Amino acid sequence: MTKTSVTIKEIARLLDISKSTVSRALRDSSEISEETKKKVIDLAESLHYSPNPIALSLLKQRTHTIGVIVPDIANRFYSSTIGGVEDIAYSRGYHTMIYQSHELLDREMSATRHIAQRRVDGLVVAIASQSENMDHFVQLQEQGIPVVLFDRVLDGLETHKVRVDDYKGAFEATEHLISRGCRRIAHIAGPQPVSITRNRLEGYRDALQKHGMEFQEEWVLHSPITQEGGTERTYQLMALRNRPDAILGASDRITMGIHWALRQLGYKMPDDVAVIGFCDLSLASLMDPPISAITQPSFEMGQQATSLLLDLIESKNPPAHYETRVLQSNLVIQKSSLKASE
Amino acid sequence: MTKTSVTIKEIARLLDISKSTVSRALRDSSEISEETKKKVIDLAESLHYSPNPIALSLLKQRTHTIGVIVPDIANRFYSSTIGGVEDIAYSRGYHTMIYQSHELLDREMSATRHIAQRRVDGLVVAIASQSENMDHFVQLQEQGIPVVLFDRVLDGLETHKVRVDDYKGAFEATEHLISRGCRRIAHIAGPQPVSITRNRLEGYRDALQKHGMEFQEEWVLHSPITQEGGTERTYQLMALRNRPDAILGASDRITMGIHWALRQLGYKMPDDVAVIGFCDLSLASLMDPPISAITQPSFEMGQQATSLLLDLIESKNPPAHYETRVLQSNLVIQKSSLKASE
Repeated sequence: MTKTSVTIKEIARLLDISKSTVSRALRDSSEISEETKKKVIDLAESLHYSPNPIALSLLKQRTHTIGVIVPDIANRFYSSTIGGVEDIAYSRGYHTMIYQSHELLDREMSATRHIAQRRVDGLVVAIASQSENMDHFVQLQEQGIPVVLFDRVLDGLETHKVRVDDYKGAFEATEHLISRGCRRIAHIAGPQPVSITRNRLEGYRDALQKHGMEFQEEWVLHSPITQEGGTERTYQLMALRNRPDAILGASDRITMGIHWALRQLGYKMPDDVAVIGFCDLSLASLMDPPISAITQPSFEMGQQATSLLLDLIESKNPPAHYETRVLQSNLVIQKSSLKASE
Repeated sequence: MTKTSVTIKEIARLLDISKSTVSRALRDSSEISEETKKKVIDLAESLHYSPNPIALSLLKQRTHTIGVIVPDIANRFYSSTIGGVEDIAYSRGYHTMIYQSHELLDREMSATRHIAQRRVDGLVVAIASQSENMDHFVQLQEQGIPVVLFDRVLDGLETHKVRVDDYKGAFEATEHLISRGCRRIAHIAGPQPVSITRNRLEGYRDALQKHGMEFQEEWVLHSPITQEGGTERTYQLMALRNRPDAILGASDRITMGIHWALRQLGYKMPDDVAVIGFCDLSLASLMDPPISAITQPSFEMGQQATSLLLDLIESKNPPAHYETRVLQSNLVIQKSSLKASE
């Protein structure tokens, strides 16, 4: 043990307060009352205590490691955000440990416990679609490990958040379909409890309303974020007596499933059915016909969440307020939605 | 500190050997000489030392955490192997920390150092294509942290290895193309230093030879494992005066690039050019036309590598010998290679 940390221990013992309170008082942290700070500083002066920055850093026991939890690393959106996380972490001297929750609350909690045990400095997380429960993240925060949410955010946790303007992305995509003459626009949405599902659904709905088009319950189906989900829901939509002439897909995999199902069923895109989806551009462009995509700045999202996290880790005091950054998506029109407009 | 570990410490001090030697001697490890074992056991008996299995486990400081390093988590082959790793790890009570090397030796070494610092119980790794150097893994082994290699294996490291029969996969795919009447078969291979690149190239070459077909240097191009690499090499192949009538792709991304480039250039698959590749089936089946694929048991590979690793972690003694498991690939013929045979 270093000389300095022993002294902090002595100060703590003499004042009957915790070492961490002493250390925060000496760092002039706003978390400590002025009264306590005065007591600590007076005693430290009388004991000729001189703070040693290296020892302070040892005391804080930084590991220069952050954790990142995503639902599914094979999803290109998440693997790209992880690229952004690693980019910032690496450039600022941090290691990144990656976990996947497989959309299961259990696995997310288990990863969070593991992160707490291993004394990671902080966590960025895109929550599992099942998670309404934020207690495990609150516990982490209470242990002094900051958490930043990205992509899927919930109001239940007070922290920095980085998300995409899902509402606007869905609104613009729906308007684009309307402008190409589509009149029966369906939406295969993501899992119901997720915030982005609600935002996208609302954007879709409001665009229909703005253009005086009817919203039909039977044209909105929820699906897990899988290709099979997108395929099955497309079968269901195309089997309707009043079948849609356009489909908006809520994710990469769902949109791949829509494209695959329409081809299987013998429909031509965009003439029979126009397709647009929230989708990775390199994947969307591989398809025949290439799929129009609402692309998200996934790499940048990972970067921004990580910058905010490292600022929380490295700052002496909690931030004056937490911010929610909303990044803009981009509409990339390709052949799948380019119906000759009427 | 527990009573037992203090006693081990005392025995170590009295005999002037390390605590770990004492503990391994008491576990009857084959790594310790019979002479040392006798000295330790005699002294332990005279001091009325009684081994306590829980304390022994504490002494070994298991963290029930394993690391996995892959070149690229967004590559479906690797995300699927990680699924297999997590499956076994989770069922045996271990956490999994995921790292990606981005095919860079630097990043791989950094992840390995991190794993050593964080006292992970063991590591499964698919080495970065750049890595001829195995020293960082040897160091890990010397610290008592076992390492198991999968997918990309090198002779330089003595340990368990799990790989796919790349030679046979490439041989059979090439024979299939020959059986469909292809006579000018090209191969877009992976990066040169990787073992699987060599094995696949050899399988391709031997199949040509078996059927009395000429091997042409200009029809074999090496590419990074990216879609762009596959696209550019395909442009290069199709620009040749003597252009190929079939292409064998060495990976998912390379094969996607081949498919994309051929469509861009206006060729029909399989009539103008037949295509087959080492490829994830769900991705290959999405394409139009669907791509014939040499599929690899990636999930199973992750499972087997992890079982072998956990056995190493949990066994008292080093294994009598290290094994190399060779899993079989599967040929799934789809439209892209179904040229009407001549």
